[in-house]
Amino acid sequence: MKKVLSLAIAAALVAPVAAVADATIYGKVRQSLDIVSDERISGADEVDNIQINNRTSRLGVKGSEDLGNGLTAVYKIEYGVNISTNPGGDEFSGDGSLGARNAFVGLAGDFGTIVLGRHDTPLKISTGSLDYFGDTVVDNNTSYTESLVDRRADGTLAYISPNLNGVTLAAAVIPGENSEADGLADAYSLAAMYSNAGIFASLAYEGADGNIDALPVNAAGQDRGDLDQFRAGFGYDGGMFKVGVVFENVTIENEAGGDDLRDSDSVMVNGAIKAGPGMVALKIFDYADDSDDTNDHDGFGIGYHYGLSKRTQVMANYVDSSFDNLAGDVSILSLQVNHNF
Amino acid sequence: MKKVLSLAIAAALVAPVAAVADATIYGKVRQSLDIVSDERISGADEVDNIQINNRTSRLGVKGSEDLGNGLTAVYKIEYGVNISTNPGGDEFSGDGSLGARNAFVGLAGDFGTIVLGRHDTPLKISTGSLDYFGDTVVDNNTSYTESLVDRRADGTLAYISPNLNGVTLAAAVIPGENSEADGLADAYSLAAMYSNAGIFASLAYEGADGNIDALPVNAAGQDRGDLDQFRAGFGYDGGMFKVGVVFENVTIENEAGGDDLRDSDSVMVNGAIKAGPGMVALKIFDYADDSDDTNDHDGFGIGYHYGLSKRTQVMANYVDSSFDNLAGDVSILSLQVNHNF
Amino acid sequence: MKKVLSLAIAAALVAPVAAVADATIYGKVRQSLDIVSDERISGADEVDNIQINNRTSRLGVKGSEDLGNGLTAVYKIEYGVNISTNPGGDEFSGDGSLGARNAFVGLAGDFGTIVLGRHDTPLKISTGSLDYFGDTVVDNNTSYTESLVDRRADGTLAYISPNLNGVTLAAAVIPGENSEADGLADAYSLAAMYSNAGIFASLAYEGADGNIDALPVNAAGQDRGDLDQFRAGFGYDGGMFKVGVVFENVTIENEAGGDDLRDSDSVMVNGAIKAGPGMVALKIFDYADDSDDTNDHDGFGIGYHYGLSKRTQVMANYVDSSFDNLAGDVSILSLQVNHNF
Repeated sequence: MKKVLSLAIAAALVAPVAAVADATIYGKVRQSLDIVSDERISGADEVDNIQINNRTSRLGVKGSEDLGNGLTAVYKIEYGVNISTNPGGDEFSGDGSLGARNAFVGLAGDFGTIVLGRHDTPLKISTGSLDYFGDTVVDNNTSYTESLVDRRADGTLAYISPNLNGVTLAAAVIPGENSEADGLADAYSLAAMYSNAGIFASLAYEGADGNIDALPVNAAGQDRGDLDQFRAGFGYDGGMFKVGVVFENVTIENEAGGDDLRDSDSVMVNGAIKAGPGMVALKIFDYADDSDDTNDHDGFGIGYHYGLSKRTQVMANYVDSSFDNLAGDVSILSLQVNHNF
Repeated sequence: MKKVLSLAIAAALVAPVAAVADATIYGKVRQSLDIVSDERISGADEVDNIQINNRTSRLGVKGSEDLGNGLTAVYKIEYGVNISTNPGGDEFSGDGSLGARNAFVGLAGDFGTIVLGRHDTPLKISTGSLDYFGDTVVDNNTSYTESLVDRRADGTLAYISPNLNGVTLAAAVIPGENSEADGLADAYSLAAMYSNAGIFASLAYEGADGNIDALPVNAAGQDRGDLDQFRAGFGYDGGMFKVGVVFENVTIENEAGGDDLRDSDSVMVNGAIKAGPGMVALKIFDYADDSDDTNDHDGFGIGYHYGLSKRTQVMANYVDSSFDNLAGDVSILSLQVNHNF
Repeated sequence: MKKVLSLAIAAALVAPVAAVADATIYGKVRQSLDIVSDERISGADEVDNIQINNRTSRLGVKGSEDLGNGLTAVYKIEYGVNISTNPGGDEFSGDGSLGARNAFVGLAGDFGTIVLGRHDTPLKISTGSLDYFGDTVVDNNTSYTESLVDRRADGTLAYISPNLNGVTLAAAVIPGENSEADGLADAYSLAAMYSNAGIFASLAYEGADGNIDALPVNAAGQDRGDLDQFRAGFGYDGGMFKVGVVFENVTIENEAGGDDLRDSDSVMVNGAIKAGPGMVALKIFDYADDSDDTNDHDGFGIGYHYGLSKRTQVMANYVDSSFDNLAGDVSILSLQVNHNF
């Protein structure tokens, strides 16, 4: 036990020059300078200014270990880094807070990969490759472009199959962890993806029992019932050009009875054409909710993305989004610099 | 001064490809899938569900530098990573917050090691190697297993001696830093540890003056007086099996006079037997407070810990804890995956 | 598209043993043991105790990429690590929170360096090399030594020129990002620095339009008007000794009319003499505000800084600051250990 104690003490009080671990530090730093016109809120609160914004910068550690017999341990800890975030309106006191992203431990083998922890749902993953504007002002996940509802589950057990003749299957269960949702799969997400010879297709479903909190943000505070979310994706990569199309329907029942809280249909179409050393990307999006049309909107984005290297990009993106039932529209011109490491 | 300025500017505005530092990134990712029955709170709030829980995952940077003449500089910055933590009840909005763990700078030499910063107290360190369920559902530091009171001091000056014929001594002082506690050692912690030929023994004391806040969490908001905490540990490692036993008494005086706020006795017994490529571990714990018996409890844990490699483990642990004076008991079956890097 | 999908899935669910990135982990761990006498607040709240304090410890990742054609991509993500910070007064529950420091992405070339993100302003940078007590108890940025107002802008576009015959120019613009401040340069900062043959000189200006929040902390909650801040620095490095002098004037108009909210003059003089293997450093500082003399103070600091290596230092620093219009003075003796990695 001498060794045990010595090690315990060494680990506790002294920091030894331990053997270098196989951890890989990685990240993305993405900043944009934006000319913003946002007329959604009428009068004095209208936004018409220039901003410097964080575009989903992140920092992570990941690694794997060969366990023998075809088994591999995998892990990742990733945080969003909120550079240039300005919640309080004071340019000199931003908190640069870290935001939770994927973090998990798992095992991979011929059977596929199983992970336990925080992770994007299979439905989110299923069409991730079809948005050519990820982490830009035209990213699907802004309030003015949002057509799809993407989620990251805090505590999930997820599985992804190996590639079987072009087909990959993914499934995740999310325990509700409260008194009325006591199962392993109070929420769950399923996806089937096919990829071959430039063609990509996906089908995904995400559902949740009514009494858990695992429901979209825009229904918060309501008496929410069951969630049913369907998504279909299609892509084609022709070398010089590529297209991606996603359809989605989301329904959230009203636990109190009566009309659904949400019954939305969304379409997102992306296209890209090689143009010299860069790429011209296009996006069209449309969101309509039959239950509550307040935020119904449609719009388009266009961008030129130029790679200074595989890891460094400069971009010019423009987005224009029209809200039928709000005071006005949103248009933003965004000049962005990206570096991956 | 040209060089000085150039360096200052380079450091400030440009990120040079500096020589690789000797910093070692390390961490643990530990997640468990738990079947929980917690009857301590009666009625509707009873917990009877399935959960995915973080088991003290962490991420750190540490290193050392040979200063010559037998002197070494040591440092560590370590954070807990709250994967799968779900404070608000919403599976999709966990904050993945970072929690303070040990972080310090210090000097090591023939005289031992001195560190300044945030660190586990010597009393906590003294029996750390005797809990074979660390960072699991049966870890001593959960509300249903808690028999020992472990602390990490925010700002401490700590010393640990070299190993002298099997004996190691550790001491830490913690300034109270408020108007009524103005000394260097308003709280302090002392430990003596002996380790030789498979035998381990430890004695530790931790104390605090009444008017500082350096007292156990369960007395918060009370008019606390002096803290006195004694702990004794004993261990034996026989190769194929090992045992560890810890006794502890904690008293907290009532500053307002009258009965003590706390006068608790705790016992924790751990055992482990090698079983094939893994280990069967057992724990018995008992906690009784003569001053306030509300949370008195006793129970046991059992687990099978299987190493897929030195760095990757899968585990099944079970804990059962009985509360004499609450509505009921706690039992949890926990399937866990660990990876160290 | 098969490859695209595979990569997307690999990045999302599996952590591959990716090629090692060029990211450099670096940091500073700085802790001090302080004997504090602070009489500024009268009566029972007077501070007269011993403290262990964090001295601007930090942790960061930085790197660069050669893009060819003389162009380089640069990035940095840096956080302050609040070791030994004790906001709630409880030694055992410090949150060890991370604080925002510089974090940016940029491009460097013959033209200089342009960065986008969070960064120290040029005015702050212009005299950074003239404070020989940085990150100690005598650092300019404590409430009792403060003579200069240094800022870090949350979202800024900054430029620094190459060294032209000893002259370096820096400029940064900070958009106000609110309804009344809609431009790119609602706040801005300019600096010119000269460094040659041991002589250093700098001139800097920082200004902000009245209605944005980009103004000094000590005017918070007031009806603030325009900010004008001028700073001049001078330094000489004679080998065995060096001196640094900084003058600053800050005015903040009163938006409601009448007297300025602030009209302060500051002087900071630093000196250092080589003494054996270490350095004796001296500082004199004076702060006087014609608009509000409540916090007027002057004082001095003295320290002995001894390098155990290039990366590890031990220090003894003493600061004495007199407040004309408060109940009393501040004096602190601080024993500090630093390690850079």
